[in-house]
Formats: sequence, C-alpha cells, structure tokens
Amino acid sequence: MEKPTLPKGTRDFGPAVMAKRHFILENIRQVFRNYGFQPLETPAMENLTTLTGKYGDEGDQLLFRILNSGDFLKDISNPELQARNSKLLSSQIAEKGLRYDLTVPFARFVVMNRNEISFPFRRYQIQPVWRADRPQKGRYREFLQCDADVVGTDSLLCEAEIILMIREVFRELGILDYTIKVNHRGILSGIAEAIGAAENDTTLFVAIDKLDKIGEDKVKEELRTKGFTENRLASLFEMLHVKGSTVNKLALFSSRFSASEKGSKGLRDLQEVLNYLTYYSASDEHVEFDVTLARGLSYYTGCIFEVKINHVGIGSVSGGGRYDNLTKAFGDKDNLSGVGFSFGVDRLYDAMEELDLFPRETQISSTVLVCHFDDETLQYGFGVLAKLRAAGISSEIYPDLAKIKRQLEYANKKVVAFALVIGSAEKESGLLALKNMATGEQEKITLEQIISKLQ
Amino acid sequence: MEKPTLPKGTRDFGPAVMAKRHFILENIRQVFRNYGFQPLETPAMENLTTLTGKYGDEGDQLLFRILNSGDFLKDISNPELQARNSKLLSSQIAEKGLRYDLTVPFARFVVMNRNEISFPFRRYQIQPVWRADRPQKGRYREFLQCDADVVGTDSLLCEAEIILMIREVFRELGILDYTIKVNHRGILSGIAEAIGAAENDTTLFVAIDKLDKIGEDKVKEELRTKGFTENRLASLFEMLHVKGSTVNKLALFSSRFSASEKGSKGLRDLQEVLNYLTYYSASDEHVEFDVTLARGLSYYTGCIFEVKINHVGIGSVSGGGRYDNLTKAFGDKDNLSGVGFSFGVDRLYDAMEELDLFPRETQISSTVLVCHFDDETLQYGFGVLAKLRAAGISSEIYPDLAKIKRQLEYANKKVVAFALVIGSAEKESGLLALKNMATGEQEKITLEQIISKLQ
Repeated sequence: MEKPTLPKGTRDFGPAVMAKRHFILENIRQVFRNYGFQPLETPAMENLTTLTGKYGDEGDQLLFRILNSGDFLKDISNPELQARNSKLLSSQIAEKGLRYDLTVPFARFVVMNRNEISFPFRRYQIQPVWRADRPQKGRYREFLQCDADVVGTDSLLCEAEIILMIREVFRELGILDYTIKVNHRGILSGIAEAIGAAENDTTLFVAIDKLDKIGEDKVKEELRTKGFTENRLASLFEMLHVKGSTVNKLALFSSRFSASEKGSKGLRDLQEVLNYLTYYSASDEHVEFDVTLARGLSYYTGCIFEVKINHVGIGSVSGGGRYDNLTKAFGDKDNLSGVGFSFGVDRLYDAMEELDLFPRETQISSTVLVCHFDDETLQYGFGVLAKLRAAGISSEIYPDLAKIKRQLEYANKKVVAFALVIGSAEKESGLLALKNMATGEQEKITLEQIISKLQ
Repeated sequence: MEKPTLPKGTRDFGPAVMAKRHFILENIRQVFRNYGFQPLETPAMENLTTLTGKYGDEGDQLLFRILNSGDFLKDISNPELQARNSKLLSSQIAEKGLRYDLTVPFARFVVMNRNEISFPFRRYQIQPVWRADRPQKGRYREFLQCDADVVGTDSLLCEAEIILMIREVFRELGILDYTIKVNHRGILSGIAEAIGAAENDTTLFVAIDKLDKIGEDKVKEELRTKGFTENRLASLFEMLHVKGSTVNKLALFSSRFSASEKGSKGLRDLQEVLNYLTYYSASDEHVEFDVTLARGLSYYTGCIFEVKINHVGIGSVSGGGRYDNLTKAFGDKDNLSGVGFSFGVDRLYDAMEELDLFPRETQISSTVLVCHFDDETLQYGFGVLAKLRAAGISSEIYPDLAKIKRQLEYANKKVVAFALVIGSAEKESGLLALKNMATGEQEKITLEQIISKLQ
C-alpha cells in the first residue's frame, strides 16, 4: 500500500504547532470573554440552501458539497444524467455543504433562535471553514476563523471596544508594531459625492480597494476606462492623499462633506468612536484613519477596520466592520445592526514566527519526566509521579525499561522542563536528582522540595 | 424565503450549552495534559483511500463523501453514467470524505510522521467526526470525539494510567457512582480455548458482546445455531457467571487457563495493571474485572475498558483498550503497540444533566454588567468598565440607552453575576450600587471595594 497523504490544502497540527496555536487562541478567547462575548459553535455541514447565493458566484463555486447518502442517483432522470451538466447535477445529488465562513451560519443561528437570544448578542466563534480554493502558500482549503460580533445595537461603543480588544490581544501576544486602520463606508460615499460620482460609487470603491495591490497608476487607468474624467481623478486623489493626524483629517473632510449627508454621518461616527476611547481613558495609539481603506465588496455599511503588522510580509491579520443587513438574506424583515471583526489565526501565527514572538514556555509539554534504571526504580518512580500530579505538576514517567540516555533524549525532544532521575541510591536516600533540561543544571533534593520548587 | 433549518442530525451549540461542554472538555484536557499527553489536530477532510476499508462495509457506507470540485463528470464515460451505479460512481466523483473517527487519522499521522515523533507518543485529540447514520435520540451525524492514546510502548503502566485518568476526570466532573469495567482479549481467548471453541472465537466474542443488549437467552440461542453444544454453553456460562472480587476471579480463571497461553497472559496483564495502581498508592476503587466485556469486533488485542455511570439510562461514557496493529492498515510492517481510550462527550453531557452536576458558575457569562441612566452615566460607566477589565474582571456595559429594567433583564437572561448600576448620584458620590443578580442583594461601595471583592 502506498504511503498515505493529506488532501491538498489541508494540514495536520502536531503538538509543537498546536502549542503555539493554543497560545494565540487562548489569549484571544480570554479577551473575548473579558469583554462579555459568549461562545457559539455551529455544525460543519449546512444545507446548501443556507450557503448558496451568499458569497457571490465565485463563492458558490468554492463551496465543498457533500454527496447525498445512499442511492443519490435515485431521483435523477436519464436525460438529466445525459446532459452531463456538473453544476446542475451537483445541486441534485448534494444537499449539504461545508461551512464557508462563520458569518452566514451565525446569521442563520440568529434567525432560528431570535426569540431565545437576549440582544444585544455578543458572540464569538472559533471554528474551521472550508473553501475549494486553489491551494498556495498561506492559503488553505481548511483554515480557522475566529470571529466576534455584537448584533442588535447600533451603539458606536462597540466599535471602540473592537479597537480596545485588538490592542489587548496584541499586547498579550507581544506584537508591538502594528496599525489599526479605520474608515467608514459613509466617508467613501462622501468622497464619491464630493467628486460627483455618487451614481458610480461601487465602481469607485472596488477601484480604491485595489490601491494596495495594483498601485495608483493602474487604479487611475481602470477608473478612466470606466469614464472618470481627469478632473474627477484629480480631486479624488487629492482627497486620498490627505496626510496628517486623525483629528486634522476629520476636520478637513468635514469641510469637503458639508453637502454630503452620508459623508458627514461617517465622520461623526468615527469621531464618536474616538470619543469613546477617551471615556475609557484610552489613547488612540495604533489607530489610523485611512480614507483608502474599503474592505472590498463586503456587506459593511458603517465603520470598517483592518489591522496590519508593520514590517512583516503578511497581509492584514484582522478586519471587520459594521453591517446593517445580517439576517436579510434569510428573509428577515426586522433587520439587526451589528458590528464584528475577526482574527486571521494562520497569518497571526506566521507573523509571530517571523518575529520570533512565541515564548519558549509554549513549547514545554510536561513539567517533569521521571527516569529510572530498573524495575524497582520504575515502580518507585511511578509512586513519585502520583505525588507530583497530585500537586498539579504535569508529569510522566518513561514507561519502558531503557537506557537513561534514551529517556533523556525523549525528554529533550518532547521539551519536558525537568528530568527527575531515580536510581537505587536516590531511592534509598530520598534525595532525588532533578535536572533542568534547558540549562543542564542538576541538584539533589527531596521530593517535597521539588514539589514546592515546581508548583 | 423559508426559515433556514439545520441538516438532520446536526446541532448548534449556543452559549449556555457551550459553557457546560467547555466545563467537561477543560477538565478532560487538564487531566490529559497533567499526564503528559500532547494535542493533535487533523483535517476534517481525508482522502477516501485513507478512510475506506477501515471501518467495515457498514462504516464505508456511513462515510460522508465530498463531491470533487469543478466538472466532476469530466472523466466519467457515458456508459459509466448510464449504469446508474451510485456506489461505483461515488468513488469516481468524490475523492475526499469527512473524518469518521479519530483513530484512523491518528494512524495516518503516525505513519506520515514516524521519523519526527518521539516515541512513546502520548497524544490527545478532541475533534468532531461525521457519520451518515440515521439520526435518533442521542445519535448525531456530527459529534465530538475525545481520544487519548499512547503508542510505541507495550508497558501496562499505560493501562493503569488510563484508569487513573478516568477516575481523575470523573472526580473533577463530580461523577461519583460509576464502574470501570476491565477485561482482556486474551482472557476471552482463554475462555474460548477452555470450552474447546478456539476455532470459533470470533463468533463467541460477537455473541458475548451482545449479552448486555439482547440478554442471555438470545445469546445462547444464537450460539446454538452456530453449533455450540449444550455442554459447551454450560461451561461457558458458568465462567461468565463467576462473581466475587477481582482477586478471587483472577485466581479462579488462573486455574481454568492452565492450558491456555493467551488466557494466562491476559490474567497476568490484568494483575500487573492492578500492581501498578498499588505502586501509585492508588486503590482499585470503581474497577471491576468483567469477563463479559468484549468491546465488539474492534481491533483490540490486550486489555479492554468500558465505563458506565450507574443508575443513569445512558450507555457507556468511555471505553478503550490496547491494540497491536494501529499502523498496519497503512502497510506499516513495523507495527506499533498502543493503548487508548476515549470519552463520549455527548453522553457525559446528558448524564451530567440528568444528575444535575453542572455547577451554577458554568452558566455565568460576564461577572459585571454596568447599567446606566443617560448619556452622561453611560460615558462614566464606560470608564468604570476599563478599570474592571484591567483588573481581570470580565465585564460589559449595556451599549444603548435603555430603561434600567431592560438592562437588568438582559443581565438576568445572560446570567451576569453582578449588575453595577450608575446613576448621577452614584457618579457624584463615587459609591456605586452593586447588585448580586442571584440573591438580589445590593450594596453601595466604591469601585476599589468592588474590584477587591470580585477579583
């Protein structure tokens, strides 16, 4: 039999990687909880009626579809089969698909449980999603999403809390040099109105969103082909080029947007978010009002965010914004306003590796490995283990008779913090040899001393 | 649009249920870690070549298969299509399937990473699995498995540690009345040899495994139809009926198995497991040597375990055993012996609900909800929130202006422990009203006092 392989674009997470991912996720979870967010988990499989039509045509094609169980051809007629239309047939032989993101399942949950939920509902959700994308470096077919949303309130206090949470998570992770870019869809509308392109705003947003990727010249070119005059382009880029502090930028745009209701609302909203930071006695450190931030064609309607770690060759590691139509796709008339953001755990992981930010302690598996020389010291060591564990010290014993060298190699490879070596002399005297695996230092002390040292 | 639904046999886990599941899982994880087990996660999707042929024909049919992306009919000829053979076609249009258990992916991981793993390898894995079973009460199509295995050693110390871990988990969960049944495949072989049915041992094991479900009479009937004589049945059931302490039972079977190498080995193994408990200064409390325990047709070759919570109408909540052929299915010649067990989290959950064992604290979401009367106290309250969170107290503020009654209802529904009510008088005096939501008790104290009280 051939050696087994993994499906393209999927990964195993062995102990060393798991420990680092755990470090990231536990810090994020702790901050979410500290801010009153509650966990939600939804099934990996959703009905395709729930998933399709929510992510655009491209998204629909990237859904993993699950073949119906049993005789899935039963209700398919011969002509239908002979048409050989994979796309059409897939909708007949597959009723379920794998979750593509966490937002649609969340919206589905809210619609299904509307009467039981106490709004405003703060939920976080950390689960894998699946996309039949072409795998490449940093892009996987199964990857973790990590979302937090508040729905059922339009209070801008929530936007301020998102900034606070991002900063808290980054502080815990040891990430110091980063920028939280903020903008507002209303401000983008204001710009469109100010240059007389209100009727072409979507075209404009799509182009602005590409500035980062294709550069100014190509964006201009694209806008020219869509009928934007040189005059318009000049006023557009004058606005996009505005530099200075957030306060100055807000003031400047305020004068430009005197005739734009949407633009003025956007500026007022941003200002209020900043005010909330002040009420919290928090600075606006790391926050940058970036008028070129557009966040693609997504469903955002208010403030938008994006976080980049500076001087690291990795895209944004977090992003989000306010939306007004979460449950509309499920026919809900009584729309809920909400605001959410998510962390890209895979990218955070890569950035932290690049910056060497994982504390060495994350790699430590057990605190103690009990090593022994023969049956007798193995049995005695097993008793020692009982006392270590009862004291809450994670420990293990090498379960087989083996050379000490081999036992220490095991401790080393598994990154056990201490080896406790027990020979017959140690057993007699009760003075056990405790070896620090990182420094090589060794001391002979009693079990009680070891326990109080390691606890 | 119709109200969305969930696929049959799948569930959402909202905050209240998540909190209880978290309580179970964190306790299990803590014990696993304390015993030196390290986490592993594998992808939800595996190649079908990895999955098929590992679970028997029935298992193969219960696999969820994932339709190939793109034009999946491309390489299917017209005659193949017209044959309308769903089973055959499924293997041509679906290359991947969803994980059916955690053991096969674990074996695959070990085979693929053999040179990097330091054996003995102690891994735990807590992930969902999917089975296209007919959904019914307590049986789901997506459910969590929670496995711990040690591979690369045949030391019976590991079996003793499984018993210790199960008892530790149950102590943490507050489950007091339960039985850990242990047996050994060698002892079952010994019985087969003792009644002269060595060549029919599989038939015998399958029948014994059904004793619990269909009762003695039907098992006898089944064995009669398979050619077991009345004599044989009499000696068989005499052995299966043996009562008494584990020590007595071991002694009794020892005399019966004098001619059976397998049987004697089984008894010696069990005795050694018990010896290890003694070296650990642990009793054999909750442990019962049950000669009728067979654990189905599974791949076990040594000790086997099964745990039942007494006086609760729920099947076994944990089980496992030793196997010698983990990696054989992947063509590995150099077989690894291992021993593992798993917790049935859904059943543990149901049992704990039935026994009302979840501590009330698990249901508490935030520690504090800050409530306010107007814009001014909302802003002031947001500053109070900053201080609470900085002290590590999980807290939130009602983000909108709303009647106090509504804010308290929210706190109540979300099970927030304390409401901190701030009116203009409280803001002036600095004496804030702290209301215990469980008792209704209320006191007026300073923020510093509140923090030291809640920390």
